[in-house]
Amino acid sequence: MSSSAAPDGAPLALTMGEPAGIGGEIALKAWLRRGDLPPFFVVDDADRLEQIAHELRIDVPVRSVTTPAEAPDLFSEALPVLHHPLPAKSVAGRPNPANAPAVVASIEIAARLAHSAAAAAVVTNPISKEALYGCGFAFPGHTEFLGALAGSNATPVMMLACAELRVVPVTIHVSLAEAIRVLDTDRIVDAATVTANALKNDFGIARPRLAVAGLNPHAGEGGAMGHEDADIVAPAVAVLRDRGIDTFGPAPPDTLFAPTARTGYDAAICMYHDQALIPLKTLDFDGGVNVTLGLPFVRTSPDHGTAFDIAGTGRAREASLVAALHMAAEIAAHRAATRT
Amino acid sequence: MSSSAAPDGAPLALTMGEPAGIGGEIALKAWLRRGDLPPFFVVDDADRLEQIAHELRIDVPVRSVTTPAEAPDLFSEALPVLHHPLPAKSVAGRPNPANAPAVVASIEIAARLAHSAAAAAVVTNPISKEALYGCGFAFPGHTEFLGALAGSNATPVMMLACAELRVVPVTIHVSLAEAIRVLDTDRIVDAATVTANALKNDFGIARPRLAVAGLNPHAGEGGAMGHEDADIVAPAVAVLRDRGIDTFGPAPPDTLFAPTARTGYDAAICMYHDQALIPLKTLDFDGGVNVTLGLPFVRTSPDHGTAFDIAGTGRAREASLVAALHMAAEIAAHRAATRT
Repeated sequence: MSSSAAPDGAPLALTMGEPAGIGGEIALKAWLRRGDLPPFFVVDDADRLEQIAHELRIDVPVRSVTTPAEAPDLFSEALPVLHHPLPAKSVAGRPNPANAPAVVASIEIAARLAHSAAAAAVVTNPISKEALYGCGFAFPGHTEFLGALAGSNATPVMMLACAELRVVPVTIHVSLAEAIRVLDTDRIVDAATVTANALKNDFGIARPRLAVAGLNPHAGEGGAMGHEDADIVAPAVAVLRDRGIDTFGPAPPDTLFAPTARTGYDAAICMYHDQALIPLKTLDFDGGVNVTLGLPFVRTSPDHGTAFDIAGTGRAREASLVAALHMAAEIAAHRAATRT
Repeated sequence: MSSSAAPDGAPLALTMGEPAGIGGEIALKAWLRRGDLPPFFVVDDADRLEQIAHELRIDVPVRSVTTPAEAPDLFSEALPVLHHPLPAKSVAGRPNPANAPAVVASIEIAARLAHSAAAAAVVTNPISKEALYGCGFAFPGHTEFLGALAGSNATPVMMLACAELRVVPVTIHVSLAEAIRVLDTDRIVDAATVTANALKNDFGIARPRLAVAGLNPHAGEGGAMGHEDADIVAPAVAVLRDRGIDTFGPAPPDTLFAPTARTGYDAAICMYHDQALIPLKTLDFDGGVNVTLGLPFVRTSPDHGTAFDIAGTGRAREASLVAALHMAAEIAAHRAATRT
């Protein structure tokens, strides 16, 4: 991916994420690659970032800014931080409930700045839902929270993307049995429609082609292995075609992600979490990016968690965050081009 | 994979497969790579193979043999065929019910020869179950049929293997909902135990390490996304460890097949068809091999179907069959070494 400046020179807003996780470390490491990155600032506690840089010997000067507009000029010399102090000291690997409100506030601030165009996009560091439940955070994850922040017109859809593949799971964080129970034609059509629009406006693909994966082995093989592909998935494909969206499916899931097959579509609409995430992570564990489609602002995130097991060790890899920063800037540029 | 001679010089027996499919074409093409392959013979109609060679301009002399013992010496000059005539002419892409008994007989003959050690192994070309139902073939596929041919002591388990990954689906050709319903601890333990033994005896891995994939996203995340991982999968892992089999799991399925994770085990025990086949085919669509573990004789097959859509066009690729022939010879050699 090429380095692309955000539209109007606005910088990207990177959230703090769970402070007991690897977010601070990968933010610092990403800044070391600044020559190749669009300018960004972190909504975080500047003192804590300085401490991480010191402890892990990551040579990054940290500088507070009072508005996003100061970030781009400063970016080549120091990591700009919109200072949001943590009430309690953060210990690697051990989330502190006292810090939960600040974690949530960092997301809210970044989303507000992006919504008002003061920031070009939101890039979120990983959070731990469990650590946030105590402060009243009641969302399954970032995607749903940002959807709520964006208001009633938002239809947030999660896409995972790497260089070789884009996937959209229609059902996400539910058991496999529940995913089968809640799967219906409308859900598939809605996710696919948001995806097709985003491929056009956010990814600059003039006539996107979608693959819709089947639910069952061999996409049900004519009913011999389940009825859902004929009853639920095939009608969704028909509706999408009626809407003028170039779509094929239900496709046998096992062959859909093979090297040659992958070149035949711009995104695969998947019926459940692991149908989407297994092929993506099999191909590219470090460089995957999570993109929220259907929001009024641009949002990406690295495709990994808080990694409490290696937090504080200096072993975290910034590749996925770097890919998320690049993709956020590219989407913001495409949206700006579409508007003009 | 290196070329390895079968033990005692016995050749591999390759079945005809569905004559309306690509089996004949890939058998001929595989023979063209004979310098790098263990000797094999085909249980097939010699006239039909000559005709395919002629029509598709594949320069392969076909020669009938009356016993497998004649095949190795002949192999460098011609493709040895244990002649089994088809009652009706075969047309590419259109299975003929009149030929179904010959298709089944080819499998029975190859299995018998392997069982008696006249052949080192059975390698099966793809069949079409639908085409065989009319002649009383009542098995979901080769794996179960060969299990029945092998008798009461067989515990056939399907493994798919490529250079980077080995996977064993615990449930196979059933709907996803049915796979969840029939999944139980015993099934997982049985498949994993057969796999561990085969990794030792057939693949020469002294102390095999197994990964057991979870069923649900994030392996259920402590019950938040389904109870089966705690109730069904985790107890299976405990039993396997009690049996002295080096096992870990239930592992979050999405990260289990990532490049680094793949180096941490010799085979992944998977809960359903696509959990196993998606990562395998994402990695290596052409070179995958299907191995039946737990049989008294060695059996492999290419990891693809009859490909009626390209049968007769000359476009079929022999890579998976070639990998299956290599793997059959290697397993036969390991078994022979274990016996002595």
